Amino acid sequence: MADTSTKSDYVVGVDFGGTKLYAGVFSDKIENVGTARKSTKPQRGVDAVIERIADVVQEAVDEADLTLKQIKGIGIGAPGAVAGETGDIIFAPNLPGWKGVPLKKSLEKLLGVPVFVENDCNIAMLGVYVTELKSKPRNAVGIFLGTGIGGGIILNGELYSGFNHTAGEIGHMVLDPTGPKCGCGNKGCYEAFASRTAIFKRLQQAVKDGEKTVLTDMLGADLDDLRSGNLRKALRKGDKLVEKVIEEAAEYTGIAIANLANILGPEVIVLGGGVIEAIADEMLSIIIETAKDYAMPGVMDGVEIFPSKLGDEAGIIGGGVLAKRLAK
Amino acid sequence: MADTSTKSDYVVGVDFGGTKLYAGVFSDKIENVGTARKSTKPQRGVDAVIERIADVVQEAVDEADLTLKQIKGIGIGAPGAVAGETGDIIFAPNLPGWKGVPLKKSLEKLLGVPVFVENDCNIAMLGVYVTELKSKPRNAVGIFLGTGIGGGIILNGELYSGFNHTAGEIGHMVLDPTGPKCGCGNKGCYEAFASRTAIFKRLQQAVKDGEKTVLTDMLGADLDDLRSGNLRKALRKGDKLVEKVIEEAAEYTGIAIANLANILGPEVIVLGGGVIEAIADEMLSIIIETAKDYAMPGVMDGVEIFPSKLGDEAGIIGGGVLAKRLAK
Repeated sequence: MADTSTKSDYVVGVDFGGTKLYAGVFSDKIENVGTARKSTKPQRGVDAVIERIADVVQEAVDEADLTLKQIKGIGIGAPGAVAGETGDIIFAPNLPGWKGVPLKKSLEKLLGVPVFVENDCNIAMLGVYVTELKSKPRNAVGIFLGTGIGGGIILNGELYSGFNHTAGEIGHMVLDPTGPKCGCGNKGCYEAFASRTAIFKRLQQAVKDGEKTVLTDMLGADLDDLRSGNLRKALRKGDKLVEKVIEEAAEYTGIAIANLANILGPEVIVLGGGVIEAIADEMLSIIIETAKDYAMPGVMDGVEIFPSKLGDEAGIIGGGVLAKRLAK
Repeated sequence: MADTSTKSDYVVGVDFGGTKLYAGVFSDKIENVGTARKSTKPQRGVDAVIERIADVVQEAVDEADLTLKQIKGIGIGAPGAVAGETGDIIFAPNLPGWKGVPLKKSLEKLLGVPVFVENDCNIAMLGVYVTELKSKPRNAVGIFLGTGIGGGIILNGELYSGFNHTAGEIGHMVLDPTGPKCGCGNKGCYEAFASRTAIFKRLQQAVKDGEKTVLTDMLGADLDDLRSGNLRKALRKGDKLVEKVIEEAAEYTGIAIANLANILGPEVIVLGGGVIEAIADEMLSIIIETAKDYAMPGVMDGVEIFPSKLGDEAGIIGGGVLAKRLAK
């Protein structure tokens, strides 16, 4: 593919997750010209992780046959609350020690390139919006079902982050104040019903309670190494327990979408994250039916709900788009 | 007060409710120079109501010693779903026969003045935003607790209505899918827990179930003429049943606010409507405490929650602001 980018037009996008780091180098047209991966190793401490992020950026740049001097900016999606102006990580629930960490400043010191930090789900939604939705809908919401559940909101064509730069915490919308306990300390958050963590907990409890599932044949009685892919396999084998638990997660996702639609009236709702990548086919019709059932008349007219095709590319693409927009 | 408005700068705002009509004439600086009231009488049919709206506008204009020729535009807040472009009432749940009614066109024909129609809660929030919040916060949410519960959302300084012009249907956010039945057909909507209708239903049921309350001394065993003001009186008499029911409504309001804050991150949350006007003092501390408890860390930092002081002036002021903005 012909690439007319000048050397200084390149940007890097980084998906900074709790278990892995993924970096991609992009041309001015957001064409990927090189990637690199690394595990995060959060147990080694904050400074070690920051160095690993710097490393994965350098490896991706090297893969693209470029040097850091040719990189205009780096956009990073981080798993937690980010201070918009300073690029500090305020708090990252799944990363021990990550409270008030000046990620932007530290990386700029290590790499000598402007760095821009955003919440990971916001970044993923920005990637989906620009490349998959072609920036067409004025208003769109992304819901990402993985270890937790996060969201990204596009309003009037722009990433929306609200007063405290915290908007889009869709996973902690309370759907039942008497529901299961959530990692945030409250009860009945959407995340406590439909995240991978929640689905796994319900399956493990059901097995303890004596219910039957093919998952125990696959993984043993503790279901210790359970992954989203196992759910897909069990569903394809017609496993009734997994079917029931996934159906409930899909129903709560439909209710969450109806709430978002009633409040925000988006034109497009995109689903992503590991759970959706593994079992979108099995969940989608239940999600859409429940959302239409719970939304007010007229609210869902012409509104599209579909799974993103970008998979884990969304994060690095979104990081690239952010860097392109913000780097001078 | 000195009024430097030229004659053609006047606008009219109309609060079109299920039981009453209220119109106000405003100068260019949104100073009220005349008002008029009328009952709605929806049982007389759509055309009769439209004529009554035209009448109340003319009476308010006459009160202000003006004529319709001096009115630049009329802004109307209507209790239902409004098509933004045409000014048609798509659907008004509390007004029999109001489906697909061309309100804007009919009134323009009767009055010869440009008419602009919006959802009543959107209009009330616009009034609160411009006069009470002085258009300062970038993002703000209004929650109005009356017969039902509605909302108005200001994003980036503008009234936000979303893709299908339906955004802000806060009352139909599901807070518990196993909760009480809502007028919309679903279960466990916020409105089914905390609207005046919901509060009254719970009190009536409790009396049927043999619980004691001073309300029966005030109104008889059926509580037939129950109004928001009775709740205030019962609370001041230390009525335990009313206290319990209001506490629950306040808690659900706090949870609804936490959900909105987690999703939207507004800077200001304003409460209004008949229930709040009657018993804000008794509800507010529970609402704020619950909202802070259920919101994610950081989300509520510096966020203000308070009751509007505008009362039912909010609707006519908002209508005036809308007309001022849209009339050429």
